Order: sequence, then structure tokens, then C-alpha cells
Amino acid sequence: MSDRIHNFGAGPGVLPEPVLKQAQQDIWNIGGSGMGIAEHSHRGKLFEKIIREAEDETRRLAEIPDRFKVLFIQGGATQQFAMVPMNLLPQDRTADYLITGVWAQKAHQEAKKFGTTHVALTGEGSRFTKIPPVSEIRYSGNPAYVHITTNNTIHGTQWKEEPPVPDGVPLVADTSSDMFSRPIDVTRYGLIYAGAQKNLGPSGIVLVIVREDLTESAPNGLPTMLQYRTYVKDRSLYNTPPTFAIYMVGQVLKWIRASGGLGAMADRNASKAKILYDFLDQSALFTSSVDRDSRSLMNVCFRSPSEEVDAKFVAEAMAKGLDGLKGHRSAGGMRASLYNACPRASVEALVAFMKEFERGHRQPRA
Amino acid sequence: MSDRIHNFGAGPGVLPEPVLKQAQQDIWNIGGSGMGIAEHSHRGKLFEKIIREAEDETRRLAEIPDRFKVLFIQGGATQQFAMVPMNLLPQDRTADYLITGVWAQKAHQEAKKFGTTHVALTGEGSRFTKIPPVSEIRYSGNPAYVHITTNNTIHGTQWKEEPPVPDGVPLVADTSSDMFSRPIDVTRYGLIYAGAQKNLGPSGIVLVIVREDLTESAPNGLPTMLQYRTYVKDRSLYNTPPTFAIYMVGQVLKWIRASGGLGAMADRNASKAKILYDFLDQSALFTSSVDRDSRSLMNVCFRSPSEEVDAKFVAEAMAKGLDGLKGHRSAGGMRASLYNACPRASVEALVAFMKEFERGHRQPRA
Repeated sequence: MSDRIHNFGAGPGVLPEPVLKQAQQDIWNIGGSGMGIAEHSHRGKLFEKIIREAEDETRRLAEIPDRFKVLFIQGGATQQFAMVPMNLLPQDRTADYLITGVWAQKAHQEAKKFGTTHVALTGEGSRFTKIPPVSEIRYSGNPAYVHITTNNTIHGTQWKEEPPVPDGVPLVADTSSDMFSRPIDVTRYGLIYAGAQKNLGPSGIVLVIVREDLTESAPNGLPTMLQYRTYVKDRSLYNTPPTFAIYMVGQVLKWIRASGGLGAMADRNASKAKILYDFLDQSALFTSSVDRDSRSLMNVCFRSPSEEVDAKFVAEAMAKGLDGLKGHRSAGGMRASLYNACPRASVEALVAFMKEFERGHRQPRA
Repeated sequence: MSDRIHNFGAGPGVLPEPVLKQAQQDIWNIGGSGMGIAEHSHRGKLFEKIIREAEDETRRLAEIPDRFKVLFIQGGATQQFAMVPMNLLPQDRTADYLITGVWAQKAHQEAKKFGTTHVALTGEGSRFTKIPPVSEIRYSGNPAYVHITTNNTIHGTQWKEEPPVPDGVPLVADTSSDMFSRPIDVTRYGLIYAGAQKNLGPSGIVLVIVREDLTESAPNGLPTMLQYRTYVKDRSLYNTPPTFAIYMVGQVLKWIRASGGLGAMADRNASKAKILYDFLDQSALFTSSVDRDSRSLMNVCFRSPSEEVDAKFVAEAMAKGLDGLKGHRSAGGMRASLYNACPRASVEALVAFMKEFERGHRQPRA
């Protein structure tokens, strides 16, 4: 343990130590097979078991009905920004986007390439420091789908529950930065996608959960690897998938289940975030930059009175083994990402250091 | 060593043991950073160094001029089957394909979705058991590019040198299964792509080497992740790349250089393949299924007198720790893949077992 530091990076983020320990063995020789996990054929029995276990763990954690398919796709959430409209948005329909941050903006910009879109809600007016009230949502007539970003990594805001959508309209969600950090009722969604590198595993793999009927009407002319159908039909084994990344996702999901499942994750994550927000709420030096009701439990954004002090804090924290605290370049300040695998001890160490730093940096009295 | 077996799998294939040993350390704590390689931010100094080293190693191994860009892209070679025509084939032009195997067929089928194509050569007549003579090539008038598959994994054939192409026409090559197994003069190509999982690293990453000018005229409406421009502009860091896979590619390339570079790889690979082909050429039981002049040094396909004996051989070999010898389901027989990281000792062990098996299975005299 002693040779590892506290990792608050926004992603790729910290992974569970038991998973890393197991990977150290399995990359050399997995399950006594005499070959490392990355050296096994994706058509072999061992990997077949691994990918199906990763799917089964996904299904079990969120009690996913059979009409939803669990897919593993490359290209990051950015590729999903294109795949969603390419597969789900007919030329004579409109897709509605709720814009609560930079990633939602990017998803919307990409969708505009492939069809007609409508911004049904935007938090740009408050510079994304809060999730706007759902009373402000103005849907288009009969959208093909509604797209949300459940957690806004850069700004540190999070939808606390799904927004209302018109009857029968599929809700599509980018859950990259809070997937499986809390229970999720997939039946409320048409499609969910999550880049693995925050709560689920290493980068290089996206978990997609999609209602099968939504995958069936995509145009045949789409690139094979950009059709959900391809992954449904061959169960994510049309071509060679990123075998190591899928193995890691399976291991992380097993770790979540062994740690008590999604309910336990939610409790742990709420408790971890509370330590930090409680400190911020009484601090004389640091402030939370986010509306209280919109606060993310995954990415806690905060700042000191000046950019100079911010920079000093980040540098001194790093020297104390508290890494990844610099805010996103577009937001400034600090950000502590408290994903599933971030231990409570890391948050406690962070707050202890913040207290120490605060004592040395009393604000001059007015 | 003793807990690992001989891996002749066609891909994902065997990786160099020193690389695996290093990965065991680095996945827990890389370079004394206190964090594992998969947990580092792709925007951090450590990963920036890793991805640039992977690029630099690529450039150094093949002495790649600056006008060529080195890109790391997800989605496998199958995604390249689409990206190549989407980016390089204008609507008023034709792309020429040389069809020497199933993967070349698939590349061609995918390209037809995006524009006009022409089959300039095909080995279907000989069921892909040889590379047809270049005298049979019939190019279209002025193709936008010519596409080849340098090594045919399923059939065990390989282009020994680049085919002639019309003046000024870019040659595009899928080199997935023989990349960096021998020297390559990239200046003879417009674009080279190689899924990493044979000679370069784990699955989940494709190495692309492309003349920059060819990336500049793609339509803007393409999905962001399917434009080569995106990767050129942000040096493969537009979004979160598969950090662990890129790290592994860099480590494998360093291992190639430390092992003497591409010339040394070519010598080793020729010598390894010779052991097996020499045995096949005098065997009373096993035969090579491929035209002598077209034999692949990467994938050695062979068969016994019957499917029953094939199956028995594969099963008994497996029991002796010789894994991955079953031929592709579309070709039957056996296949030994002798990628860079396959040690000479593995080939010697295979031939020793084939001799032993042959002694027990003399063909009945006619």
C-alpha cells in the first residue's frame, strides 16, 4: 500500500487495489492457462467466459431486463456522440438535448452533423454551475430521443434524478462519470453509455446498455463498427475487442458487487462527498463553486480566493501525495474526483491537508 | 518461465515476456509515481511522455519522415476498412482493391458502402492459397488509392514486396499481421494501418501511419472519431485514448529496438518460419497448404491427411502446452502464428512434437 498515493484524477481515475493486484497476476498467466489475459484469443473459451461474465455482472448489478442489450464498444463517449444520432435519429425527426455542461455541448454539436436537433434546456446562462430546474425544459414536438449528461465532470454538477420526458420518448444518457456510482433504473432509459475510465475500468472501452428495438432501424450504410446492430448480433465480438479492458471492467464490476453493490456504492460515495462538502461549507478559505442542489458526488469542484493560492494548493497537495486536484483547464480552481474506487481514507487525507493549508493561509481581514 | 506455455495464437497473440514483467509492476505503480499506468490522466506529464515515446519508437524503427503522421486509433482494422474510403475516396473517384484473402474481401465490402471500388486483382480462383502474380493486376483508370493486405492471417500467405501501383497513386496497406515483423519503407505507402494485437501489443489499438496531405481533404461531416484529421491535429489525444494499450505498444516497440530492430526481427522471423516449413516440406504426414512463393512468415498453415487427424493433433498439442494451433474456422487445418514475440524455442518445441506425432501416425501405405 505504502508505495501508492491518493489519486483524485478526473479520469482515467483510480482503480480498486484488489483489481490491480489480480491483474498483476493475470497479465502474466490467467487462471493457470499459461498465457496472460492480453494474449488469449478473443474466440477462445477463456475470453468468452470473461466477456460474458462482464455482461452478466453488468446485468446483475442493475437488474437489467433481457430486452436491453449490454454492449462493449471502442472510441470513447465521443464516438457515442455520433453513434447515437446516426443510429437513433431518422432524417424526418428531431433529437432534443439538455445542455448542462461542456460534454453535453459536445454531444449536441456532434449530433448536429447527422440530423435535426433542439436544445430543450441549457445551463449556459449560469455558466453550468447548476442543473437548471426541469420547469425550464421545452421539448420539441415529438423528439426521436432526449439526451442528457447525468454528471458534469468539468463543472461538478449532477442530475439527482432523471428529468421528465414526453411519453414514449427514449431517454439517452451519457453516464460516463457516474455510472454504477449509485443504483440506476435502466428501464427509464432507451440507451445509456459510459466510458469506463472513471468508475468501471481503464480507458479504451465504453459500456452501452440499449433497448434492443432501438438498434434495429439504423441505416445499413453506416460503418459496420458504428452500428449498434453489429454489437448486438455478435455480442460485442464482431471483430477483436479490447480484451484486456473488458477483462478489467469485469473485475471492477465483481469488486463493486463484493463491496455490496450499487446501494452500498451510493452510500459510500455520499458519505465521502459529504466529508468534503461539509468542510467546504464552513471553510474560511475554500468555497464550493456549485449550486448546493446540483452538487456532484463524483467531482467536487472548489476554489480558494485567488488563482495564485489555487496553484500553490495544488502544488503543495501533490507534494503530500494528493494527486489530480487541478481543475479542468476550462473551469479553473480545484476538483477532487471521488469515484467508486477512491477510498474514504483519501478524502480524509485531503480534508486534513486542506485544514492544514487553510491554517497557513488565513485570508487577510478586511 | 515454467508456468507459461507455447502460444501460437493468431491474435491477440503472444507478447514479449520482459514487457509483461514490466507491466506487472507498472499497472500498480509506474515510474515511482504512486499510481498505476491505467490510472494516470491522459493529459498528465507521465502519459504525455508515454504516448510520445510510442510515436518516437515507431518513427525510429522505420525511419519515418515528418510528412507522415503516426496515429493511435481505436476500433480495430475493421474501423479502418471504413475510415480509409470515408477519408480518402472522393465521390467522383474509384478505389482499387487487391483481394488476397478474407480480410481484403471485408475491407473491400466495407469500402463499397462509401464510394466506387474496383477489384484490380483477386486470388479467389485459387481459394487464396497464393498471392496471384502482379502481371494479373488490372488497375482502373486513375484510382484514388490502391488497397492491399500485406499478410493474410487466415490463409497463411504474404506479399513479399509491394505490388507496382500507377504513378502518384497512394498505396494503402492493412499490415495488421506483419507490421514491424520486417523492415518497411513507409515512403512507398500513402497509409498503413495495423491492429496491434499480433506484433505490436494488446488488442484495442490500431497503429496508423499516414501521409499528412492525404488526411486534409476528408468531408467535414464525418464523425469526429472517424476523421484522420482529428488524430493528426491533437496527436491522438482529442479524447481519452486507450492509455494502457498505448503504453503496451510503446513497451513492445522498445523491446523490438532492444532486440536489434526490424532487420533483426526479419532475420529471426525468417529463421523461425524456416524451421517449420523445412519440416513440412519433408514430412510424411503434414503438408503446407500454401504456394511456396507466397508463404507467410507470420502464419504457417498446414494440415494432416484428414480432419480427424487434424483435430487429434490440435488436442494433443494443447495437452503438451502448445496452444492456439487450430486453423481459422473458414480454412480448417492447423495454423502456427510465429509473431515477433513467439520465441524460437516455441517453434522448436512445436516441430519436436510434430515429429513425435508423425511417428505415431504413419500414413497407411497405398
